[in-house]
Amino acid sequence: MINSANQLSLIPLSGVGDVTRNMYVYQYQNQILLVDCGLGFADETMLGIDLLIPDISYLQNAIKQGKKIVGMLITHGHEDHMGALPFILPQLPDFPIYATPLTAELANGKLQDFGVAKKVEIVPLESDHELHLGVFSAQFIRVTHSVVDTSHIFIRTPIGNFYHGSDFKIDPNPYDGKPTDKAKIMRLAKMGVVCLLSDCLGAEKKGTTPSEQPLTDFFYEEMKKAQGKFIVTTYSSNINRLNQVLTAAQKLGKRISFVGRSLINTMDVAKEMKLVNIPKGMEIRIDQIKQYKSNQLVLFVAGSQGQENSALTRIANNEHRDVKLSGLDTVVFSSDPIPGNEISVNTLIDSLLRLGCNVLYSSIAPTHVSGHGSSDELIELMQMVKPKKMLPIGGNFKHMVAYRKLAEANGYRKEDVFLPNDGQEIVFTQNGARLGQQFNVRKVYVDELSGEEVESYVLRDRQRLSQDGVVAIIAEIEGETGRLAQKPTVIVRGLSDTDTDTIIKVTQSELQRMFVKKATTNNLLYLRKQVGKTIEERLFRKYRKRPLILPIVIEV
Amino acid sequence: MINSANQLSLIPLSGVGDVTRNMYVYQYQNQILLVDCGLGFADETMLGIDLLIPDISYLQNAIKQGKKIVGMLITHGHEDHMGALPFILPQLPDFPIYATPLTAELANGKLQDFGVAKKVEIVPLESDHELHLGVFSAQFIRVTHSVVDTSHIFIRTPIGNFYHGSDFKIDPNPYDGKPTDKAKIMRLAKMGVVCLLSDCLGAEKKGTTPSEQPLTDFFYEEMKKAQGKFIVTTYSSNINRLNQVLTAAQKLGKRISFVGRSLINTMDVAKEMKLVNIPKGMEIRIDQIKQYKSNQLVLFVAGSQGQENSALTRIANNEHRDVKLSGLDTVVFSSDPIPGNEISVNTLIDSLLRLGCNVLYSSIAPTHVSGHGSSDELIELMQMVKPKKMLPIGGNFKHMVAYRKLAEANGYRKEDVFLPNDGQEIVFTQNGARLGQQFNVRKVYVDELSGEEVESYVLRDRQRLSQDGVVAIIAEIEGETGRLAQKPTVIVRGLSDTDTDTIIKVTQSELQRMFVKKATTNNLLYLRKQVGKTIEERLFRKYRKRPLILPIVIEV
Repeated sequence: MINSANQLSLIPLSGVGDVTRNMYVYQYQNQILLVDCGLGFADETMLGIDLLIPDISYLQNAIKQGKKIVGMLITHGHEDHMGALPFILPQLPDFPIYATPLTAELANGKLQDFGVAKKVEIVPLESDHELHLGVFSAQFIRVTHSVVDTSHIFIRTPIGNFYHGSDFKIDPNPYDGKPTDKAKIMRLAKMGVVCLLSDCLGAEKKGTTPSEQPLTDFFYEEMKKAQGKFIVTTYSSNINRLNQVLTAAQKLGKRISFVGRSLINTMDVAKEMKLVNIPKGMEIRIDQIKQYKSNQLVLFVAGSQGQENSALTRIANNEHRDVKLSGLDTVVFSSDPIPGNEISVNTLIDSLLRLGCNVLYSSIAPTHVSGHGSSDELIELMQMVKPKKMLPIGGNFKHMVAYRKLAEANGYRKEDVFLPNDGQEIVFTQNGARLGQQFNVRKVYVDELSGEEVESYVLRDRQRLSQDGVVAIIAEIEGETGRLAQKPTVIVRGLSDTDTDTIIKVTQSELQRMFVKKATTNNLLYLRKQVGKTIEERLFRKYRKRPLILPIVIEV
Repeated sequence: MINSANQLSLIPLSGVGDVTRNMYVYQYQNQILLVDCGLGFADETMLGIDLLIPDISYLQNAIKQGKKIVGMLITHGHEDHMGALPFILPQLPDFPIYATPLTAELANGKLQDFGVAKKVEIVPLESDHELHLGVFSAQFIRVTHSVVDTSHIFIRTPIGNFYHGSDFKIDPNPYDGKPTDKAKIMRLAKMGVVCLLSDCLGAEKKGTTPSEQPLTDFFYEEMKKAQGKFIVTTYSSNINRLNQVLTAAQKLGKRISFVGRSLINTMDVAKEMKLVNIPKGMEIRIDQIKQYKSNQLVLFVAGSQGQENSALTRIANNEHRDVKLSGLDTVVFSSDPIPGNEISVNTLIDSLLRLGCNVLYSSIAPTHVSGHGSSDELIELMQMVKPKKMLPIGGNFKHMVAYRKLAEANGYRKEDVFLPNDGQEIVFTQNGARLGQQFNVRKVYVDELSGEEVESYVLRDRQRLSQDGVVAIIAEIEGETGRLAQKPTVIVRGLSDTDTDTIIKVTQSELQRMFVKKATTNNLLYLRKQVGKTIEERLFRKYRKRPLILPIVIEV
């Protein structure tokens, strides 16, 4: 007979169905192990908001009920896997956090930036050290991705083993000579795997993601041809890519310089950890570039996504103090636009082309390869791990469905692949797995500067303000008669002149009617609500517009 | 000696460097010929705005100076080539407008919808009829694209011939059996061509855009397999594509129905013009589908771009009265996301997949081919037309640059290809061509409902409102003393609770200080400005935020 307590709950708090905000709960009895703690990025509907974080109310309730977080493991140093740490950690009790060396450095740096005192522990990657965290034990497995030190995690639990296969590809020739550790994957998988959680972002792509290797030659050849400055932009954390450019620059005797705060921060970490090795005298400060001929210069510049205030956007708009571009210069986008950034990246490319620069980007030149494996690599992992069940993670729902098709083509049944929503518990027992409870998870918005959560009604207000503007109405009421003392003041912003004029007229006449017709009351709050409601309805009937109404009633 | 008056000015009012809003001026002495009059589509920075239209102030000035518009020619029935007619025509004197049959019908329909009385004339396409418009004469040339009846235009002017090669591809096997009329292109080109204006959107793509032909079999095979309803979404104007689906549906004895206003409108035009032929009894109204088994039904549904209020989005959200989806149904996206729509299209695909539908889209199945030619087709047109000069149109600046590379690879010099900005005059004489004046062109925003222009300061207000909210301040001043009569009322919207509380406190104390310290004046307007300025500066210093301030000063 099965003990009902002998079960493991796996709950993706977020990260299934929307690529980012990765955070996963493994819970056995009253012990919880967490994996990742990532940010999401705002889209155009989230006005004035930059970031989303996972909703941890499930964890907060669990703690109230006496459950304990025994630890957290971080798979790699990308924002969507560890960027929410400074916002989440202060809301939870202390627990140990583990990550491989670079990931830990990047996470610690982030916590320091936000003034959160919490040391992320570092586990040596090369050994077969096994972490013990309550009833769980865990081992990191080295995989290739677009940031070095990326890991998968083999998690042993009382009901069986889980393979947490976050973002990866299987590049046989990564620049740092550290390929995916297939031997370790297969050795551990022999113990049996209850469930494989797998990256699925590349599930729609046939074949294999190309190796990073040919990029080294590409950079060398283009740099050799370059008549002016050679500028490279990529994700700041892609240290292997930076090393490929560095190698070419060194061979050609160029000087290098870094532009942009995020990039400089990452380079400081990378230098300290000896992940990059820049010969003495090769690196110069950006304000020293005037001392060199432009064809002696290779610049790494942050801002590959066309972000508004990034170094590259400022350079393209000729607003950067030190870097001015001419028709001789070359700019290489060694990155692809993240979905949603297509227009800003295209605008940036166009601006650089208008300056006459030679601009190379992935649709016209081999400037970039993805950090995510394509379908053959996803299948290879599936075949190495041989799981009973699967859970595709880190993709849109369409990627999860495409992953399930791959699994079905490889002999699995449809029901072996879970496609849950965020907050959906999956219950594993020694006998099998089933869907459990659906916990309620909200979208949690964070203001990047203050770190404060922004409630969704604030966003709804902003949405209305951004579409239909605002109407402030000040009605002065005679205390004795309850009538308007004079024509109400009406201020309209965010609407066209014609709309503004009509709204003022309509509002004034409506209010005059209202305060003559109705029996008035001296309850100013009531009157205020009344004014707001009446005008809102009237404007919607007339214009199909819903400006935000700010009614103020004053007794004079 | 060259008469300085013997020159032709070509001015792209818009349509170079941003794909949409196509509108071109050909001007000889005091006669102006216009080509196209297209809309642009708003991006996320244009809050509450749906549309952009070309800036016609150049034309309005020209008319004041006694110049005359002798006519307008429309290349094809897409919104970005004719959608601005209802907004532009009422602002200009009357002139004749010509287009091929379907284009003319679609344009007339648009004008009727907006209540603009202006009959677009129809020129029979098949004949070699030559239009005479002042000093210009023009012939339409049939080309293939994603809407039938698309034309290029051969324009004869006193200084030589122009080939206006708007959107096209060279599909040898279009569904309607009407391929690009290469014979006519070559015959006309023999007269010599001063300048080729050419579609350049596909210039980054190698080879040839695949034919539409295999799609017919694809639809048939998928429809045959379908266990439930078979739903197809595409651009409403893609009548050939709809015919391919109809053919499959007819072979399989299915009933068809159309969902979405834009689609029904286009189908009405297409039926009237005998461009589609639906056998009696095959088409049913959408409220009749309950009478049929779901696998008897093929539905054409509008909303391939994931537009918020489109039929397909409502169906996916289970908000459509007549159409409910189940796991047996198939939905085919026979279209690609327009840049900027990637997220809304992905969200829509995910919603449909969550309902369990079988969703087919272009990254996993051959559901769509582009209407724009790839580089080989662009080169083929170049070689048929043999122009002296070239002007790539209808692309981003990066596509224009890619087009210039194609021209250079085909024996042209860099300076033979103009890459102007919007409003840049190019002056052609019998001796050559040079850049002329740069006319000032603004972005003109239009409210889709009212048709009214929206000034850019309105957008700036909305931008601020959407990021940082609004603060209304009501200061009541004692008439005699000029001091605050009571604590000012402060209303904050669009900011978080903590921000709101602090802003109210800061504003109240700042105002109390202000009206004690300063010598006051009874000029309420002056006081109002003063309050606004003071609070704005204070909040920005303290929060780095710039809510829109609405200050009101009232004397009591």
